[in-house]
Amino acid sequence: MSMKETSVVDVGGVKIGGDNPIVVQSMTNTDTRDPEATIDQINRLVDHGCELVRVAVPDEEAARALKKIIAGSPVPIIADIHYSPDLALMALDAGVAKLRLNPGNITLEREVRRIANAASARSIPIRVGVNSGSLDQEIIDEYGRTAAGMVASAEREIRLLEDQGFNDIIVSLKSSEVNITVDSNRIFADRYDYPLHLGVTEAGGGRSGLVKSAIGIGTMLGEGIGDTVRVSLTGDPVEEVGTAYDILRALDLRNHGIDIVSCPTCGRTEIDVQSLGKYLEMNMGDVTDSIRVALMGCSVNGIGEAGSSNVGVVGTENGGLLYVDGKYMETIEDDDIELMAEQIEESVRNYLNRGE
Amino acid sequence: MSMKETSVVDVGGVKIGGDNPIVVQSMTNTDTRDPEATIDQINRLVDHGCELVRVAVPDEEAARALKKIIAGSPVPIIADIHYSPDLALMALDAGVAKLRLNPGNITLEREVRRIANAASARSIPIRVGVNSGSLDQEIIDEYGRTAAGMVASAEREIRLLEDQGFNDIIVSLKSSEVNITVDSNRIFADRYDYPLHLGVTEAGGGRSGLVKSAIGIGTMLGEGIGDTVRVSLTGDPVEEVGTAYDILRALDLRNHGIDIVSCPTCGRTEIDVQSLGKYLEMNMGDVTDSIRVALMGCSVNGIGEAGSSNVGVVGTENGGLLYVDGKYMETIEDDDIELMAEQIEESVRNYLNRGE
Repeated sequence: MSMKETSVVDVGGVKIGGDNPIVVQSMTNTDTRDPEATIDQINRLVDHGCELVRVAVPDEEAARALKKIIAGSPVPIIADIHYSPDLALMALDAGVAKLRLNPGNITLEREVRRIANAASARSIPIRVGVNSGSLDQEIIDEYGRTAAGMVASAEREIRLLEDQGFNDIIVSLKSSEVNITVDSNRIFADRYDYPLHLGVTEAGGGRSGLVKSAIGIGTMLGEGIGDTVRVSLTGDPVEEVGTAYDILRALDLRNHGIDIVSCPTCGRTEIDVQSLGKYLEMNMGDVTDSIRVALMGCSVNGIGEAGSSNVGVVGTENGGLLYVDGKYMETIEDDDIELMAEQIEESVRNYLNRGE
Repeated sequence: MSMKETSVVDVGGVKIGGDNPIVVQSMTNTDTRDPEATIDQINRLVDHGCELVRVAVPDEEAARALKKIIAGSPVPIIADIHYSPDLALMALDAGVAKLRLNPGNITLEREVRRIANAASARSIPIRVGVNSGSLDQEIIDEYGRTAAGMVASAEREIRLLEDQGFNDIIVSLKSSEVNITVDSNRIFADRYDYPLHLGVTEAGGGRSGLVKSAIGIGTMLGEGIGDTVRVSLTGDPVEEVGTAYDILRALDLRNHGIDIVSCPTCGRTEIDVQSLGKYLEMNMGDVTDSIRVALMGCSVNGIGEAGSSNVGVVGTENGGLLYVDGKYMETIEDDDIELMAEQIEESVRNYLNRGE
């Protein structure tokens, strides 16, 4: 993997770009005007590993709530700004760690200049956040909703910021189409050193939202493009954080939590792999250390997978063969699946605590 | 996207390779010795768009059940063979449309020769199916469980087949690690023209299984590698078929069913996008025609997304603005979310039936 070397931007102490680890972020979907509900959700996001949180700032009441939210948040807060330079200035006054500006609806030179100067005075970075759903009409007329149009939209805003001597910049180029998202980021990464914030926008919920996000973000990260990730899923944003780590773990870019390797089951399966997997997912979400656990229905691939995992269980007609670091330990009875699952959980927890 | 031109293999009338559409396949997890249960599951898979089905053949009783399964299946059946050349010959006698052989456990020259001759006499193709969990010990000793080792395992088996003049071959290289899966397929595609069957093995269930499969398979397809897809997920194989189509649709390689574009919701959201999306997913799984539906919480990206979708709904404080082919039609009340969802479903169904 050839990593693209980007500049480093500091967001309230969290470094994005260069050779820093890929930062995981999300966005609240509470009403920002309700600081308590918003802080509650931020805390849940942080419990699951979220490192930066963005909040919508649709009006002045929301902007006024920012101070309380920032005071109550354990991680830096980013303000999401559309249309209004005044809301951007209010957010800066409240102490946000980054601004996201949409170059599709904050386009006037004097507006961008005002925001850049205020952000510069406070050393606050700006993300130029292009979204295919809100491109400026001029761009649509010239390019359509294409990768070239998205890059042109970012470039125009970047030039306005650079003209003010401002280059504390992060960029995102998000389309609801995976191919356009990937292409626009490739074009941009080829031309600029600014760190890239990755995401497929409006990916939707459920299975297809996960699939679109994983392919889009995964393809770019696999090419060495990207410095921070925000997965956009319809639903509880905690899922966005988990999915971001799933993507980073799948590519060996960051390790976080249990990596369950488990077979699809077939006519050979001897143990209830699906129930065991569900049990571990449900009961071990608190684990943030990295560990690989194999749950395999039979010995065909089971011995190999268990042998190359930290903890492994392989189905046989006599029960599950338990392996730890590739060594056979004992055979676990599979008559009671709950008991079996608890025994596996215990083995995993013992493994995680082995150094203590 | 540069498409890799591969040779074409005919699996019971389904063509894999060349410029044929990527074929979607899955595998039953019923007991193959129970033909009724297996045929029931095959029919469910086919209802969801599955084009080829593989069944495990762990013993002679399973091999004897194949004839009945093949007679009852609306799509060609593939036999999954490990260890035993005799089971491969029994499967050929029963009339399977393809054999999958594991080169990690069917390695002897005279065994491969016997199978190749019998398959050749019936014009039945063979998939050389390498799996990182069941590599031959000789390969592991020389290469470890690496991409190079997986390719070497495939090459050894291919040479044995080619020595018999047999080249009706499909190849798969599956690791439980995404990076190794992708790398081994890249190496292979660079050296051979045989069609590739893609999959990430033992991906697990739930979110992380989807993510691993989507990144691995999606990255390869994005590079023009791959001719047929089998997603391996712990659980109901119907999910594997849906996920395969989600991947192909995300990359614009095959269109199938409703593509829901929907925002992650935030402090600006005016309508219950998540419930609407769930309703459409639950109630419109029967749709196989291709249609893009946008469900957007507010106007920021909503107007743009609705404008470039077949049917779109954009939240405002007065209800949902309904767009059809980019044109505003009416405003739908959002007081009763069930009623609102039904109205959107009706618009989508009307759109799909517009030509009739």
